[in-house]
Amino acid sequence: MKRTAFFISDGTGLTAEALGHSLLAQFATIKFERITVPYIDNIEKARDMVKRINVAAEADGARPLVFDTIVDSAIREVISEAECFMADIFGTFLSPLEKELQSSSSYSVGQSHAINNEGVYERRIHAVNFALDNDDGARTRHYDEAELILVGASRSGKTPTCLYLALQYGIKAANYPITEEDLMDQQLPEVLRPYKQKMFGLTIDPDRLATIRNERRPNSRYASIKQCMHEIEEIELMYRRERIPYLNTTAYSVEEISTRIMVTTGLKRNR
Amino acid sequence: MKRTAFFISDGTGLTAEALGHSLLAQFATIKFERITVPYIDNIEKARDMVKRINVAAEADGARPLVFDTIVDSAIREVISEAECFMADIFGTFLSPLEKELQSSSSYSVGQSHAINNEGVYERRIHAVNFALDNDDGARTRHYDEAELILVGASRSGKTPTCLYLALQYGIKAANYPITEEDLMDQQLPEVLRPYKQKMFGLTIDPDRLATIRNERRPNSRYASIKQCMHEIEEIELMYRRERIPYLNTTAYSVEEISTRIMVTTGLKRNR
Repeated sequence: MKRTAFFISDGTGLTAEALGHSLLAQFATIKFERITVPYIDNIEKARDMVKRINVAAEADGARPLVFDTIVDSAIREVISEAECFMADIFGTFLSPLEKELQSSSSYSVGQSHAINNEGVYERRIHAVNFALDNDDGARTRHYDEAELILVGASRSGKTPTCLYLALQYGIKAANYPITEEDLMDQQLPEVLRPYKQKMFGLTIDPDRLATIRNERRPNSRYASIKQCMHEIEEIELMYRRERIPYLNTTAYSVEEISTRIMVTTGLKRNR
Repeated sequence: MKRTAFFISDGTGLTAEALGHSLLAQFATIKFERITVPYIDNIEKARDMVKRINVAAEADGARPLVFDTIVDSAIREVISEAECFMADIFGTFLSPLEKELQSSSSYSVGQSHAINNEGVYERRIHAVNFALDNDDGARTRHYDEAELILVGASRSGKTPTCLYLALQYGIKAANYPITEEDLMDQQLPEVLRPYKQKMFGLTIDPDRLATIRNERRPNSRYASIKQCMHEIEEIELMYRRERIPYLNTTAYSVEEISTRIMVTTGLKRNR
């Protein structure tokens, strides 16, 4: 049986969605149809939402799950009239929080992903630009400005990780692809040597690397399992010799790789 | 008075953090020290966490707020012994959900940001690579493969938006910077004409654009307010003439811009 899950918000819906996904991940045997509905910020939209939920209830033969982060209790009340199971996040936690903080909620809408504090937001965008300017093979290498320099074989996940660190945490991360030439020297590339403290290494299982490289350049020497095995072996040797902290990314998502780097290096989110 | 808020998880902590930030945003008058602690996945780490919370309670003279998404109830119980106010997300919602779904939770840890379904995760990484390959001034323009083509003046926010759409939603978004040359022609750039249905325009207040451009190239003609006013005026005219949906990004974060584009275009997250 299919169940429909709605993630409803007066803002972007990212928080309701994140929480809903976390909870639904605990019920792997059930098939969920997941629908995110942002910007439900007035009574009229809430009434349309009720209709939509009821249609799904009818179609599924079971009431939909609703995960909402709506600040306005009048809007929440309208939604609660729908035929649904409601995990009402603000409704559940706001009033105990008000009591704990001895302060009234401002009941302001869609604050968590808004530009509340321009300085913070701009740091994130600067960090994205920094990551792009200091990506693989870029000629500009502002390693003095970098908070982190990710190194690793080509296609081991450096670029998406740098971008995620920038967008999510405002971290200025550069990346440097370790090439065969670098490995032949048996020492750290000269350009990196002054910045050893900022370095973090990525590694990956050679099989997986070969698969990824084959998508880019099928049947090339670059994508061969032999080449991948050789590079990864040498690169891991380098990490250990130079005492560079490193992580095998094979089983991890960008979110997990980024979080683990933050924990290992002690870097702090730029607020 | 300062209050400390901990976002604690057995996984990346992204969900606990998102929810905690949403709730704390409602209390703008209180100063919070925010600490995210990922990977609290055994009893020993939980005991250390209790000490850390109690130290903060002592230092602040008020009990910390704890927002947790820990699946294992034994770990949650340890944490609940700390001197804190606990917004216990899984503790609150899991058991009613089990009842509603007539199914037991799998109590599996850190699932929401893990690579559960490789196909989905790979689409996100492909989308990031696509955005990078089809960014501003790229020679490769695989507009036939794109799900969305963002257009706009240089520095109006196209690149970070494309990257966010890729990372968050797995959307393949290309971007095309509208230049003065394009504007002189008084028609859509030829390379875009076959893909009008995929186009979405960004605009921005000329003042803001001038500020952003001045950071990149101080005191240039490119960054002058006169030039920015001219470009934006012409670009908005083009959007209206060609009936391209568009959004003024001045007051919005990348998350908000991306969500609004998803809503307006009806694009769906790639799962």
